[in-house]
Amino acid sequence: MVIAENQPPEPPPAFNLKHYLSERQAIMETALSQAIGVTYPETIYESMRYSLMAGGKRLRPILCLATCELVGGTIAMALPTACALEMIHTMSLIHDDLPAMDNDDYRRGKLTNHKVYGEDIAILAGDGLLAYAFEHIAVETKNVPADRLLQVVARVGRAVGAAGLVGGQVVDLESEGKTDVTLETLTFIHRHKTGALLEASVVSGAILAGASENDVHHLTRYAENIGLAFQIVDDVLDITATQEQLGKTAGKDLQAQKATYPSFWGIDESKRQAEQLIAEAKAELDPYGDAAQPLKSIAEFITARTH
Amino acid sequence: MVIAENQPPEPPPAFNLKHYLSERQAIMETALSQAIGVTYPETIYESMRYSLMAGGKRLRPILCLATCELVGGTIAMALPTACALEMIHTMSLIHDDLPAMDNDDYRRGKLTNHKVYGEDIAILAGDGLLAYAFEHIAVETKNVPADRLLQVVARVGRAVGAAGLVGGQVVDLESEGKTDVTLETLTFIHRHKTGALLEASVVSGAILAGASENDVHHLTRYAENIGLAFQIVDDVLDITATQEQLGKTAGKDLQAQKATYPSFWGIDESKRQAEQLIAEAKAELDPYGDAAQPLKSIAEFITARTH
Repeated sequence: MVIAENQPPEPPPAFNLKHYLSERQAIMETALSQAIGVTYPETIYESMRYSLMAGGKRLRPILCLATCELVGGTIAMALPTACALEMIHTMSLIHDDLPAMDNDDYRRGKLTNHKVYGEDIAILAGDGLLAYAFEHIAVETKNVPADRLLQVVARVGRAVGAAGLVGGQVVDLESEGKTDVTLETLTFIHRHKTGALLEASVVSGAILAGASENDVHHLTRYAENIGLAFQIVDDVLDITATQEQLGKTAGKDLQAQKATYPSFWGIDESKRQAEQLIAEAKAELDPYGDAAQPLKSIAEFITARTH
Repeated sequence: MVIAENQPPEPPPAFNLKHYLSERQAIMETALSQAIGVTYPETIYESMRYSLMAGGKRLRPILCLATCELVGGTIAMALPTACALEMIHTMSLIHDDLPAMDNDDYRRGKLTNHKVYGEDIAILAGDGLLAYAFEHIAVETKNVPADRLLQVVARVGRAVGAAGLVGGQVVDLESEGKTDVTLETLTFIHRHKTGALLEASVVSGAILAGASENDVHHLTRYAENIGLAFQIVDDVLDITATQEQLGKTAGKDLQAQKATYPSFWGIDESKRQAEQLIAEAKAELDPYGDAAQPLKSIAEFITARTH
């Protein structure tokens, strides 16, 4: 076939995020289900599986797989770590829902873990998932040098502990009912409670594939920006979605007098800030060209979502 | 100095277990205190430290240091793992004491974590300690090949999760108030609830120092035997110590109709079984000669203790 010299090259087929996400979600459902079987004592395995297999976007594992591929690795290299990240996320939800914490009876339309299995089993299911996450990374990852795996264990551990998710939770608990929460405190909560594990998801995938310091730098900034944008959009939706659904101006954050980004900036400025963060996140990925399309589309997806 | 040819060599100085344990405890107190400092948000670090620094025999870390030295390693190589094992043990105590579990107000004469910091913080302190344990092993261990550290992460993770401590807890909870608990179930509970982490403590120290499969085999059997003996002695003491103190025959296990080794075997046979297990544990260490003296003395200490 002869191509005329001045003819532009065939554009790559448009990236289909919906198709990409559902394909990756299917990979994760299978991998997660295989990661934890049911054996004696059945109750604890069933309880762990109940929450682990309760759906969700699988955003953290999908980010981990995506950055591993971006830096030249394979899905197989990142799959055990991706599963571990979802186990840890699930642990945080189970413990968060407990009566001593948020006291939620339902999550994603299903009874919460402690409503089905009791508080004692729910606490232990969380502990079991957290411990198993690290075992799973160490035992199941193949074809990745041991020193990279240790870096992943270290980063994931830090992302969950008092310097990460747990620390964010504590400040969130301490801020409840307070009317003088500053923007700095609000940002600390989100950077730790949700941001730290998102960042570990993004960076660990890249580390497994042998990321350079420069890769880690760009991907860290990508993760920080999408994490914060995600939270701002959540806060905005809490108000606007409720307006549409209930025909009133106040969402549950507002009713709970909870500090949110719109309470500092208003809705329009919050949206603008989220869009700005997404633009900056995408700019961090420019050096990777087309290979970064999935990660850029995921970033856009965050501000575009309406529920 | 001329030594007469037939004079027997000077015997090695008698091993002083009390001195050995207090020396090692001091090393652990310092290392644990340095491992977790207090920074923002202070509450969670203070809560973690409150339980971590509340004393205790530090048996798991001391076993870990001892097996590392036995196989030719140094205390420094094993110290981060030793700290991690104590953090995990502490996590299990904090979560165990929660109202949804054993609902204990005091431990070692001090208020339990949730009585001081609230249930929410206590749950998070446990989560924080568990996550930090793995981070600490991965980040702080020096001069140990990465593949050995991964083996330690895997074994410690397994020892805590549903295949270990958590699984034992679940069967223990399910056995509460039942009058038909079998000897097999009782042994399952103890092999998992306390045995698994003891075994991981013993074996991980050796792995850090480059243990052979043969070393791991001997040390695993040593650990299994002392773990079970420890529990049998605990059960016996629950009866005999109460007899002396309160002048009645029933201890709290008996009052709670809890299955114990004496309830199957009686007190004398239970003591005999514990002594037999200790003899077998010590026999596993014969190949190591005098170097195994600390571990042999620790085994004897378990059956000799009276409180």
